This record gives sequence, structure tokens and C-alpha cells, in this order.
Amino acid sequence: MITLKSYLRGEWVVGQGEPVTLVNPTTGEPVAETSTRGIDFGPVVAHARDVGGPALRALSFAERGKILKALSKAIHASRDELIEASILNAGTTRSDAKFDVDGASGTLAYYASLGKKLGDARHLAEDSEQLTQGARFHGRHIWVPLQGVAVHVNAFNFPAWGIAEKAAVALLAGVPVITKPATSTALLSFRMMEKLVESGALPPGALQLVAGSAGNLLEHLGPQDALAFTGSADTGRKLRGLDNVLSSSTRVNVEADSLNAAVLCADPSDDTYQMFLRDVAKEVTQKTGQKCTATRRVFVHASLIDRVQADLAERLDQITVGDPSLSEVRMGPLANAQQLADYRAGVAKLEASGARVVYGSATEVSLVGADAQKGYFVSPLVLRADAPAEAAAVHAHEVFGPCTTLMPWDDADELVSLVARGGGGLVASVYGDDRDLLPKLVLGIAPYHGRVLLGTKKVADQAISPGLVLPSCVHGGPGRAGGGEELGGERGLRFYMQRCAVQGDRALLDKFFG
Amino acid sequence: MITLKSYLRGEWVVGQGEPVTLVNPTTGEPVAETSTRGIDFGPVVAHARDVGGPALRALSFAERGKILKALSKAIHASRDELIEASILNAGTTRSDAKFDVDGASGTLAYYASLGKKLGDARHLAEDSEQLTQGARFHGRHIWVPLQGVAVHVNAFNFPAWGIAEKAAVALLAGVPVITKPATSTALLSFRMMEKLVESGALPPGALQLVAGSAGNLLEHLGPQDALAFTGSADTGRKLRGLDNVLSSSTRVNVEADSLNAAVLCADPSDDTYQMFLRDVAKEVTQKTGQKCTATRRVFVHASLIDRVQADLAERLDQITVGDPSLSEVRMGPLANAQQLADYRAGVAKLEASGARVVYGSATEVSLVGADAQKGYFVSPLVLRADAPAEAAAVHAHEVFGPCTTLMPWDDADELVSLVARGGGGLVASVYGDDRDLLPKLVLGIAPYHGRVLLGTKKVADQAISPGLVLPSCVHGGPGRAGGGEELGGERGLRFYMQRCAVQGDRALLDKFFG
Repeated sequence: MITLKSYLRGEWVVGQGEPVTLVNPTTGEPVAETSTRGIDFGPVVAHARDVGGPALRALSFAERGKILKALSKAIHASRDELIEASILNAGTTRSDAKFDVDGASGTLAYYASLGKKLGDARHLAEDSEQLTQGARFHGRHIWVPLQGVAVHVNAFNFPAWGIAEKAAVALLAGVPVITKPATSTALLSFRMMEKLVESGALPPGALQLVAGSAGNLLEHLGPQDALAFTGSADTGRKLRGLDNVLSSSTRVNVEADSLNAAVLCADPSDDTYQMFLRDVAKEVTQKTGQKCTATRRVFVHASLIDRVQADLAERLDQITVGDPSLSEVRMGPLANAQQLADYRAGVAKLEASGARVVYGSATEVSLVGADAQKGYFVSPLVLRADAPAEAAAVHAHEVFGPCTTLMPWDDADELVSLVARGGGGLVASVYGDDRDLLPKLVLGIAPYHGRVLLGTKKVADQAISPGLVLPSCVHGGPGRAGGGEELGGERGLRFYMQRCAVQGDRALLDKFFG
Repeated sequence: MITLKSYLRGEWVVGQGEPVTLVNPTTGEPVAETSTRGIDFGPVVAHARDVGGPALRALSFAERGKILKALSKAIHASRDELIEASILNAGTTRSDAKFDVDGASGTLAYYASLGKKLGDARHLAEDSEQLTQGARFHGRHIWVPLQGVAVHVNAFNFPAWGIAEKAAVALLAGVPVITKPATSTALLSFRMMEKLVESGALPPGALQLVAGSAGNLLEHLGPQDALAFTGSADTGRKLRGLDNVLSSSTRVNVEADSLNAAVLCADPSDDTYQMFLRDVAKEVTQKTGQKCTATRRVFVHASLIDRVQADLAERLDQITVGDPSLSEVRMGPLANAQQLADYRAGVAKLEASGARVVYGSATEVSLVGADAQKGYFVSPLVLRADAPAEAAAVHAHEVFGPCTTLMPWDDADELVSLVARGGGGLVASVYGDDRDLLPKLVLGIAPYHGRVLLGTKKVADQAISPGLVLPSCVHGGPGRAGGGEELGGERGLRFYMQRCAVQGDRALLDKFFG
């Protein structure tokens, strides 16, 4: 049994009292334990603010970028070991583990490059502009790092990437981080943090890890701090409503539930159709459907829905479920017993709302090398709702597992309304080759999404799958998805910085901030 | 007695039941009454969303700009009448009334020009960038209008500008507005709205006025809506914490309390010194100190503080207080009885915290053409705190009237800490000519402010006073100031728009959104 440690104030710390047990979701067996009980987070926050912040702010973007590069390398150098931790505690296949671990090192490397590009500066500056009749009096908006701490609260499904994607942005902005992974899959987070600390690249106080409950951490957030949360809408709501957060205007970024939609238009080219099928099959099964960006609703032009149902079934037949450490297995278990219970209850909600199962089963699954009585396994599942407007739960309840719902459409305006019924999502994808319809659909659904992927013939072999979050594009969505925005290259830095309009003599502004 | 009306769903409406009385703060006499009781705001919100939104979104930026231009002209054409309403119900001098009314027409005109510049488009687009190894697959971030309504809740001190500056930005972004001025000074807001409606320039549902209590309006806010509030930090906190706002990630922008600081460095040029004195005297007395951007804390290099105290007294001696309709009067009353009570209690707090009155009186004032027993008059007031670090209330309690506190400094790092003690402010100003010290001070205080004005010799005759909010620069501040950002030219539009990363074939993205 491994005991996880938190990395706080430059030391590895274990809390007191009864620890929480982390299991192997393939077998249900305990693999690690952790506790943060008794830890006072006041001094932890002070360490970030008083030691980490000044250390980072003393560095240029390029110097911070070098640190990120070293962190990225440290993860990549321990890739196999980290993948093993993911398989053991998160039940991922090797491929799914890579998606998380390589996503972590890749995002750090991306922001390392951005740091290099931003160079010797310690702040960002926008263009100068004349403010009054006089030619000398100008304004220049500059961005400077917040003087507090970034607290990151992450979800169980990306124990490596979740930490890295948030930390890369905050650290490059010059703001120290306290990161809290979800406890149930924190073995990988802990192992990764060990590598990051061992790299020697981290300035003191720049990155601290809470391996377990956040205790009183969030009570310490103040006006120069930032809280970024990924997880359920309910928890996001609670965090945003914390008394001290409301009182001191602490910045909060929430990335929460999302009923991501895929849309297939009539008469797609064959390449586009195959791209659509490939993407949907991937988004249903990758990481056992436990991605905030996974496709939950599939709107298929009515002329194609039966064909899609059959072709998707054929693809999903290829998905072997079982022990994720076996090379022939394509999909592992859900992450823990609670997730399994929530998943089954969620499917029942969709069924009660008018969706019927047309592929797979919510209760039965045939496994390779694993015991369905011990692990948290489910099969890929496809539902179908032929009266989408009436299937309320399909548009409102995120079922976090390998499950999606097919729905027919034929009128473009109705389709836009149905997509919008999701109440705000992270990503939608639209597949088709009708150049008159596509911009109409994109502009119709864009207000409800942080990202829209357009699948057309010419990019069928180059495009990413919609569930992949690239560091160069913003990640987040309005409404139900939390109203947040992360990443997006330089855009992401701004959450951790204050914009300030400096007004004065043009020559001075150019000299000081140009 | 004038009865104010609300402009809702295309009609002028009066609520039922006992109305609220608006007074003339110079005499305490009633001048108007208003009620919104019994109004159900559900259909009002629906009218904005279902009629106003589509009408605005059908227009290009240039066409929306033309509407703003017409609104600006309508205000300017009725300038004298609006100024009279301000004097009567807000107790402003003619000059202070112009500051509000011309600020309204000026901000609308500024955004009209921006609309013209943005041209035929209906959305904003950022640069396209390659996302993968393949040259064709690109990403382009676009900005599209939210599909809901912008609700604007304004403070009593700018009944004209407050409405106009927020509405200009939302309308140009393509989002319909429901605006609610503070009831106590709403006569001017109502009169201005009459002119805007009469202009015939407003598309149906684009702008609605709530002349009184907001009733159940805010309960209707959802995931595609935006709430912008200016007022006290306490109310801002409440609005941000509304259950439906938290649950649906409604966007909220708060502009609240601010302990704006002015800093005078050692050895200023004479021009710089005079600029500093002129600005402080103006910021203490303009609009009877009832500006969110007024200078509340004045940090003077210890070598100059006695001289400043004497010179400032000489300037303030010129401020005649009394009936604001008289041309010889330079400062009118506070806006209402509650403001007067709050002001006196606030001054007592500062005194209890170690500040002592060195100019004027919190209880006595000599008046021209007015009766101190009837109107809400006070004199300009200067306090001084020689141990600034210990004067906690001076850094934490905003006294909303013609009052400021002088404090000495000599160490630059300590000065930065003292300025930061304000907990986040709208604007700070720094006066001096030491080119080594200035950038250090600006970068030190920028994280705590939305704006910093640098007063130096070369701009002494061209610079604005720090309390003036220009539409080209962002207006807002972190922490205590609410954590918001308004205006700033095109920057301000983004609060009312959703950014969406569109990914796909480069040629298509260029064609659709380029």
C-alpha cells in the first residue's frame, strides 16, 4: 500500500487520522491511501504568496518558460512509470493513460514555447493610444501578474493533464500554484509531482500539491487570488458562492458539466461521414467516456440516422472491454464505485426521459481478463431519442461514461435550438459539406459553446477529434459548462493577470512598458 | 410633482401602490415620485430576449453604431433640459451636471465611432492559426453576441452617464438592455429615456428602463444573460451571490467601493506639483465627492506634506458651497439624507482610526443661497493621518463625499504596500518626475488597480484628472472595487459576447469569418 504525500512549503507531508483509500478500479483492490487531515492551509497559502510569487515574478516569461520546459521533460522522462500509475489507479488503457500523461507534458511544452516567444518581459502590453487632443497624453493597457496564489481544483479523470494544463498557464503568468487533484485517482498526480520536484526546476513555493481533501484551503482565498475548478456544476456553484470568494471578488474559473453535441448534416461526402463515425466512436469510448469534452448528444440528419446507428454499432463492436493493462483491451472500467453508480442512475434518467438503448447494455458487459463483480466495468452504450425536443434529461443530464444518444433532425433552426438546449457546452462538432448551411449552424450554436469543430471533406484526415483540448484554443463554455475559459495560448494567461490602463506621457509609457 | 414612468415592452408604465418620493437635495422638497410595484418582469425579460436581441443581432456593428450616434444626438439636443433635471433632483452644479450628461452623449458617440470602424460585420474575429501538422486544419476564435439580455443596475451618482456608458457597449455588442438607475436620482434617467425613445432610433426591445425598484427582475437572469452593477460592495456581493446567477453562470460585472489613491513623489517639477494640487482639489469637490473614482487617499512624500496641506487649503477656500443652480456656487449638496448620514458616520470612522480633520468640518458649512437645515450640505474636508499603516479605516472605508485623507510616505516599498491596503481600486494617480522611481511605483500598484494615471511635467497641461472615466480605457478594479472591467473601447464588448474557437478548414474559416 502506497501512502501519498502532499508537497507543501517545500516538504512532503502526510496528514493525520484515518486515511482515504484509493483503489484499482479494475479489481476494486486498495492500492494507496492518503490524508490531509490536520493540515492548516493558512501557512501553505502564505508560502505561495510570500515565497512562490516573488520568485516567479522576478523571472521573465522566457525564464518561466524554461522552467515549464524542464517540467515537461521530467514528465516525459518518467512516461512509462506514470502510465503504470494511471493504469493501476485510474483504470485507463495504455492509450488512454498516454492521452493524459502526454497531454500534461505537451501542454507544458506548448507554454514553454510561448514563454520563449514572449521573451524578456515580465508583463504584457497592448498598443498605446492617444487619449486627448494633446498628442502626448496616451494610454497603454498593461497586464501584470496577480500578487496572490492560484488554487487549482481538478477532476478525477485527468490526474496528470488537469494539473499540468492549469499550472502551465498560471506559472507562465507569474502566479504560484496550489493544486488539488481529485483524491480517488491521485496516485498519478502524486507520482507526477514527485518527478516535478525531483527535476529541481521549480522555484520555492511555485507549485504545491494537496494530495487529498482541501481542508480549509479555500477559506484563505482573497482579492489577489484565483481559483480554477474543473468538476461538477454543483461543486462549481458551491465554490463560486463561498463567502470569502464573493466578498473579495476572488477570480473563479469553472469548467463543469457539458452536454457536448455532434451534428451530422445531410449528404456528407464519404470522407466526412467516416470522420464523423470515427470521432463519435472515439468520443464515446476514449477514457471510458470520462471526458468533459466527450460527445453526449449526436444529432443526425433524419435521412441518415438508421445508417449511422448500424455503422456505429459495427465500430463499437470492435471495442474490447476489460483489464486495461492487457494490450488487446480497448476500454477499461469507470474510475470508481461512485462513478459506476452515478453512471447507471444517469442512463436510467435518459431512458425515463424517452431515450431507448439501441446498442450495448447499462448492466451487462463481457470482459477480457477482468471480473465484472469486482471492477467498475460497463459496455459502450448508444441510446436513441426520436422525439429530441421532449427528451429533457438528454439535454440536461451529463452521464459521465461511455454513453451517447442519437437524435434525428431535419430543420436547421430546430437543430440549433436543440443543440442550445444543452444550456452551454464546451464543444460542439458539425460534420457536413454544405457551404451554405455550415456558417449558419456555426453562428447559431457558437453563443452556447467555447469551441466548435467543423468536420468537412478537406480536413477529414487532418482534424483532431472534438474531445481533444489543444492548448492553442480556449477551453470552457458558458452556462452549464461553468462560464469559464482556460488555455487558448496567451489568452489563458489573462485570468492570472490584472489589466491596468496606464495613462501618461507617451514617451514614458513607451520607455517603461513598450 | 412629476410621476416617473418605466419604459417596458414598448410602453410607458407606472407601478401600483404607494410610490417612492424623490427629493431636491438642495431643499429637501419632493420633486417626483415613482413605483414599479406589481410589475412582473418575466415578460419584460422575454421582450428583450425575443424582440430586442434578434433586432440588434440582425444589424451590423456599423448599423448599431448609427443607432448610438442618434441616441447621442438626442441627449445633446436636450442638454439644457437634462441639466435642469440633474440640478433639481441630484443637487449638482451646472458644471457637475454637464460632467454627467456630456459624459453620456460622449460615450455613446465614442461607441458610435467604434461601430463605424468595425463596419459590416456582426461578430468579431481573431487571427487564424494552424493547429496540427497538416496545413489545412486551423483555429479561429470568434466573438458572437450573447443571446440573452444585459441587465444594468446603476448608482445614484451618474443617472445619465451610468445608463449610457453601459448601454452603449451592450447595444454595440448586439445585446438588448434593461437598465435600472438608482431611484433617488432617477428623474434625470427618466427624462433622458424620454429623449431616447422620442428619437425613434431604438429598435423594439433594445432598451427598457426600470424607474424604481427592480422587483423580481434579477430572478430571471440565466446562462445567456449578463448583469452589470455599479454601487456598493455589499450590494455587489449580494447580486453575485444570487442563486440563479450562481447556478447558471450568469456573467456579472461589479464596479464597487474604491479607496482611490493619489501619490506625490519628492522633488516634483512645479508643473507636476500644480497638476497634483489641481487634480486633488477637483477630485475632492467635483460632484460633491460622489464619484467612484474620486481620490480618497493622498500619499504625499513626507518632505512636502505640510506644504501640500497649506496649498490644498488655499484651493479649497475657493469652493463656494450652496444652491447648485447659482452660478457662483462650486459645490452642491450630497444626493439625499441617507448619503449625508452615511458620510458623517464615515468621517467619524476615519477619525476613530487615527485621522484628524485639518481642513473644513464634517458638521458645519457656510452656504450661499441655501439652508443647511433643509439641504444635505457639507463642506470640503481634508483629514490627515500621520501613521498611515495604523489608520485601518482610511484604507478600508469609502466615505462617499467631499473628503480625502493626507498621509506621509518616504520609503517606496512601504508606499506600495499602503496603496495596496485599499484592497483593489479603480484608479491611482502618481505625480512626480523621477524616471527611476515611476516605473517601479506603477508596476508595484498596477496589480491592485484598473487604471493608473502618471502625472509628469510633460503632460501637466494635457492630462485628464484621474477621476474622469474615458471610454477608450478600461474602467473597473480588482478586489474591493468589484473585480470588474467596463468600457476600454472594443475590450468592453467582450463582456456581452461569447468567444468561441472555431476549428476547421482554413479556407472555410477565412470565407465564413475572415
